[in-house]
Amino acid sequence: METSSSREAPRRAGRPKRAVLSPARITRAALKLVSHDGYQALTMAALAKSLNVAPSALYNHVKSKQEVLLLVQDHLMAGVDVTGFANKPWEEAVVVWAYSYRNVFAAHVPLIPVIALLPVTNAPATITMYEALTQGFQDAGWPTELIIDAVVALESFIYGSAYDANAPADIFDAGSMAPQTPYFTASVARRGAGLRSISGSATAGGNAGVARGDADAAFDLGLRALVAGLAAGVQLRPSQLSR
Amino acid sequence: METSSSREAPRRAGRPKRAVLSPARITRAALKLVSHDGYQALTMAALAKSLNVAPSALYNHVKSKQEVLLLVQDHLMAGVDVTGFANKPWEEAVVVWAYSYRNVFAAHVPLIPVIALLPVTNAPATITMYEALTQGFQDAGWPTELIIDAVVALESFIYGSAYDANAPADIFDAGSMAPQTPYFTASVARRGAGLRSISGSATAGGNAGVARGDADAAFDLGLRALVAGLAAGVQLRPSQLSR
Repeated sequence: METSSSREAPRRAGRPKRAVLSPARITRAALKLVSHDGYQALTMAALAKSLNVAPSALYNHVKSKQEVLLLVQDHLMAGVDVTGFANKPWEEAVVVWAYSYRNVFAAHVPLIPVIALLPVTNAPATITMYEALTQGFQDAGWPTELIIDAVVALESFIYGSAYDANAPADIFDAGSMAPQTPYFTASVARRGAGLRSISGSATAGGNAGVARGDADAAFDLGLRALVAGLAAGVQLRPSQLSR
Repeated sequence: METSSSREAPRRAGRPKRAVLSPARITRAALKLVSHDGYQALTMAALAKSLNVAPSALYNHVKSKQEVLLLVQDHLMAGVDVTGFANKPWEEAVVVWAYSYRNVFAAHVPLIPVIALLPVTNAPATITMYEALTQGFQDAGWPTELIIDAVVALESFIYGSAYDANAPADIFDAGSMAPQTPYFTASVARRGAGLRSISGSATAGGNAGVARGDADAAFDLGLRALVAGLAAGVQLRPSQLSR
């Protein structure tokens, strides 16, 4: 990615010399724009302005808004926690990883189509995350040929859950149809009544003792079910799953 | 939704009388536009033109493109198969439902943020789907207070999987970083080698005997793991799970 910097020179006569544009500087500016005004404010024109450069200078480094989004996505991926794979059983490490992954992108849902649909080729932090992740699966006894399918299944759940973390509280309000939909209406009304977790304590992911909302409860339920189902399916080596 | 039709009159003088606009007609026109030219072609201006009406007439029925997307989403939701909940064990019915849900929206990924983030209040087909679904969960012995969390967990997985069904074949190409990422690179290279399913035959969902791609394999693996994990967690009544 750095190679495009060489295309910046020569500058136009009369334009004041500024700090050289770089992917890192573009990424920081894009994140700042997004954190102030949301993703709808992230245009190539606004980004060039915030960097105090002409749009043509910006286009010398990134060909499109899509490329800017890829830079931002890769930057954020460094915040996804894969440390558990070095020292925890697979079932715990994957829960820690999934919570951090979902939390990072719940704050950046417009990036989800970017992660889900663009090749990782130019995203070094993303590739580094996948290396630690796949090594963790391999070390836990996962058959090599199933690792990517399992990762994709978990990521699909995580991306959808990141959307759901942004769902409004009234998303399941049947409105005037409520009298005709008694099962749905009762399920929505009683959602989360009583205990939140069906599988005992929810200590992983740093959520122990914290009152959690609907989205967190659904995420926790699904994540534990998915992880348990995956572990049961591949019959991981017992030594890897016990403490 | 139909009540907005009353706001259509009076027409502007000189504008030829045409078939009255309705949500159904707007939905059909939007789907036709999208199927020809994709979601980027779906603008209020293009939609008005395809309906042969002035944009102001269209705005009398739908306040924004977001409302058009909600109409289209609700229309498509009628194609999601909930029939299994009437006559199959829960674990089979939910697999049939999930396959059809993912297949419908894999062809309409720009609608995923709409489904995931907008209230169902004005989406009658969606509410009807949820009624059949929640009744199916209740009949299978699911505790009422857990049904919506379980549905949301399954939907999160389905939405993410609908994105993944559109991922390019080279999405996991590490490119020049391949030599530094041996675990990831080996996992990607061997993805899907040998048997596709870890849990026996994959007869549900209408995919038996069909050669499946990477996205289908990941979806099948994750769906079966998630369903098995959910079923184990709630300890459904045995009578509901046996044939």
